[in-house]
Amino acid sequence: MKATYTLAELAQHAGVELRGAADVAITGVGTLSGAGPSQITFLTNRRYAAQLPATRAGAVVLTPLDAASCPTNALLSDNPHATYARIASLFAEVAHWSPGIHPTAVIAPDARIDPSASIAAHCTVESEAVVEAGVRLGPSCVIGRRAHIGDHSHLVAQVTVSEGCALGARVLLHPGVVIGADGFGLANDNGVWIKVPQLGTVRIGNDVEIGANTTVDRGAIDDTVIEDGVKIDNLVQVAHNCRIGAHTVIAGCAGIAGSTLIGRHCAVGGGAGIGGHLSIPDGVTLTGMAMVTKSPREAGVYSSGLPAEPNAQWHRTVAHIRQLPSLLRRVKALEAALQNKPADDPADNG
Amino acid sequence: MKATYTLAELAQHAGVELRGAADVAITGVGTLSGAGPSQITFLTNRRYAAQLPATRAGAVVLTPLDAASCPTNALLSDNPHATYARIASLFAEVAHWSPGIHPTAVIAPDARIDPSASIAAHCTVESEAVVEAGVRLGPSCVIGRRAHIGDHSHLVAQVTVSEGCALGARVLLHPGVVIGADGFGLANDNGVWIKVPQLGTVRIGNDVEIGANTTVDRGAIDDTVIEDGVKIDNLVQVAHNCRIGAHTVIAGCAGIAGSTLIGRHCAVGGGAGIGGHLSIPDGVTLTGMAMVTKSPREAGVYSSGLPAEPNAQWHRTVAHIRQLPSLLRRVKALEAALQNKPADDPADNG
Amino acid sequence: MKATYTLAELAQHAGVELRGAADVAITGVGTLSGAGPSQITFLTNRRYAAQLPATRAGAVVLTPLDAASCPTNALLSDNPHATYARIASLFAEVAHWSPGIHPTAVIAPDARIDPSASIAAHCTVESEAVVEAGVRLGPSCVIGRRAHIGDHSHLVAQVTVSEGCALGARVLLHPGVVIGADGFGLANDNGVWIKVPQLGTVRIGNDVEIGANTTVDRGAIDDTVIEDGVKIDNLVQVAHNCRIGAHTVIAGCAGIAGSTLIGRHCAVGGGAGIGGHLSIPDGVTLTGMAMVTKSPREAGVYSSGLPAEPNAQWHRTVAHIRQLPSLLRRVKALEAALQNKPADDPADNG
Repeated sequence: MKATYTLAELAQHAGVELRGAADVAITGVGTLSGAGPSQITFLTNRRYAAQLPATRAGAVVLTPLDAASCPTNALLSDNPHATYARIASLFAEVAHWSPGIHPTAVIAPDARIDPSASIAAHCTVESEAVVEAGVRLGPSCVIGRRAHIGDHSHLVAQVTVSEGCALGARVLLHPGVVIGADGFGLANDNGVWIKVPQLGTVRIGNDVEIGANTTVDRGAIDDTVIEDGVKIDNLVQVAHNCRIGAHTVIAGCAGIAGSTLIGRHCAVGGGAGIGGHLSIPDGVTLTGMAMVTKSPREAGVYSSGLPAEPNAQWHRTVAHIRQLPSLLRRVKALEAALQNKPADDPADNG
Repeated sequence: MKATYTLAELAQHAGVELRGAADVAITGVGTLSGAGPSQITFLTNRRYAAQLPATRAGAVVLTPLDAASCPTNALLSDNPHATYARIASLFAEVAHWSPGIHPTAVIAPDARIDPSASIAAHCTVESEAVVEAGVRLGPSCVIGRRAHIGDHSHLVAQVTVSEGCALGARVLLHPGVVIGADGFGLANDNGVWIKVPQLGTVRIGNDVEIGANTTVDRGAIDDTVIEDGVKIDNLVQVAHNCRIGAHTVIAGCAGIAGSTLIGRHCAVGGGAGIGGHLSIPDGVTLTGMAMVTKSPREAGVYSSGLPAEPNAQWHRTVAHIRQLPSLLRRVKALEAALQNKPADDPADNG
Repeated sequence: MKATYTLAELAQHAGVELRGAADVAITGVGTLSGAGPSQITFLTNRRYAAQLPATRAGAVVLTPLDAASCPTNALLSDNPHATYARIASLFAEVAHWSPGIHPTAVIAPDARIDPSASIAAHCTVESEAVVEAGVRLGPSCVIGRRAHIGDHSHLVAQVTVSEGCALGARVLLHPGVVIGADGFGLANDNGVWIKVPQLGTVRIGNDVEIGANTTVDRGAIDDTVIEDGVKIDNLVQVAHNCRIGAHTVIAGCAGIAGSTLIGRHCAVGGGAGIGGHLSIPDGVTLTGMAMVTKSPREAGVYSSGLPAEPNAQWHRTVAHIRQLPSLLRRVKALEAALQNKPADDPADNG
């Protein structure tokens, strides 16, 4: 199922200017260093700019600024990555599926399945669940009671959507995703933890993508909410009562504690940890492994953590940090000796 | 299936004092800011105390101390969270299930399934496994050979319990949980890693709850043990040969390396990492993302990590920390100049 | 199915010297402190050396150096851990399986399944997939279109291998593993994230083991590659376009961002985070929770992060670090006062 397009066709599809031979036939995509004469590639990351002059690609999507160094046909775009995404989608494998319910799927009699939906082997769809038009449930998905799967959503495989949770349209859930498990709600009663019933659900907007084995817990009272256009990577934990604002992205292994609100157009780096009951304003970027314990006041990039260094040096760094109190005392003593300033000046909080 | 209770009935059920109108009908729960006149709510977190005077709730569960500011009916409790948990459980959806084995489930002939257990579609129960009274296996669970599922346990969906592992009574495992995968046991033989057989199992006590996609590995020789009343959140890793003491809670994304013992009544914060072969005393709390490399000596709260700050400031913080060695040298030189103390004093470990 | 071996047989099987009674019968393994007279144990970790004199084990695998303190029969090995692994494998449960396809498994007509393979209940094998000789698919595995499962691989349960991904021989995938979900490829188009098609696959070498609920994403253009002998623990994220060099080990909860190359014979500690587009040389060890933001130049051990300390002390540590800029200014002022060196010396970057 290999598609072929001329460069003229690709430029027209993407709405960008072609500089070069319009009739070159392109059959797929490649990397800047690996693409051959019938493949198209792109340049966005400065790390790879040095590879441009030697590329053997049939064409490169790049900015007008980079076009001067391009040894082959060029598609000029102010946003080469988005242009590449549009072109690459033409070469993506056509999905092999068709409407209908596999005979091994177990569908509750009062579930409502649109005739245009496709439900693969070993799925379970429980009572009163709704599966809208064009939905694809891959193998071994579990859809709980009264859950709602919006039109043209795709649950790839082994996905669980628990009771009452609702997905918007065109939601993409990768294998192992769990939507709507109980939030971690516990009350301590004389040393024994008792369960606080988790009575909310999860509501997910349109055009949301959630990565493999990521978990989004149901709310304790109100719902956990993922707004339109949010993209979440693999192995991310979103705790109960969180709200993730529209068009925010969250990279792999991040964890967001309960009742935290994340604004729109935020970017949460891989492995970042965000405490509970915080509010992250619109437009905040957290770099990888950042630890957020207080709500940032405004948009911007926030970071924490010490980058790795050779182990012996790291041991010294830790020791030096542990010595800071004595260092402060020593500096105060020097100041006192030099300036006749008393070392125990109570106004000095150093 | 909506329940309705009067405030008098709720107060009696929870064993607390009602201050207000006994006959108000309550049909559900709500948040302090969102609850209406037929809903009950609670106040425990000081962050939300300012919302109390404006609440429209039919009643609030709170401490006697907070009752003065309560504009509506009040249920007085020394532990409002636990009282709320008991009341909210009355409004939780009645589970829709009944005993029996779904025709698509595959049960080994020599597995023993109590007639009161419920086994949903697409489950697999292997040879010699035991499923006790009142157990619910949700869709697509896998129970390995000779595994034991204690009475009234509930495996929500897509759960795997591997060969020989044993669960106590009333254990709740959320979707995607994996109990008893092989521990990460490897021996290096001239640069090649060879597998060390993992011959232990996992033993889980009573009243344990484990969150979605969390993994608990089987022991290498002895068993990995989770004691009674332990509560574990989503995406947590418990490595082989760990023992988690009774009534300890572990928040999401935490990781516990092999052979570490965690005491009773501990609290492990989200994203915390605990090294291998350590011993955490009873009553230790680790705050979020804490990195534990040595065994704490006593109960208490332990923390690590630098909270996020604006990125430019973070770069300066990292640079300043890298400069600590030269700063120490400069302070020594100042001390030497001022006090005639030799800068290379070997007794000075700064 | 309990096996029994004499010490002479075990020594011969492992190719090591026996010091002691050749005809002692051994029926299993135990820990140094827990093993009885019919069990064999081992000593490798110095933490446990103090337990050696009191062991009741029938025999201990240890180095010639430790043999002097051994109160029982000894198997002498320069690598006791590897020797123990070989001996313990004799006592591992014989797997209970046989070739054939369970009647509930759904196999595409044009999938190719070797007659010696075993496919358990509720598996799905899609069109044109290939399952080689001796493969075991445990319950509820999903094998995507044109995926290739190499000979004698074992997918324990609930594993997903997506379209086009290829596993080598003797690959062991634990429950919940997801191979080949889409990489996290997004292009920002005026604030809205659009999906960049992920057109590569995942290629996994021989003798690779991957832990429960770990995820390995497919490449964006080229493939994500896991080389021979790599061992990955639970809940690890390997992003698109990574290459993990042969015989590298990755402990639980680690995350590796996109397009990063990890060399051969590396060891990545638990919870470590490695940024994208980096290159980790052969022979690098990262300790637990290390944060890697730049490519290390050479083999060695790298670390980061501050170990946990009592919470009050931690607050002081954070405050002291925040005071470093003022401390640097104070030291400069002291230097200026003492040496007549101007405090604002532009050559001084402190």
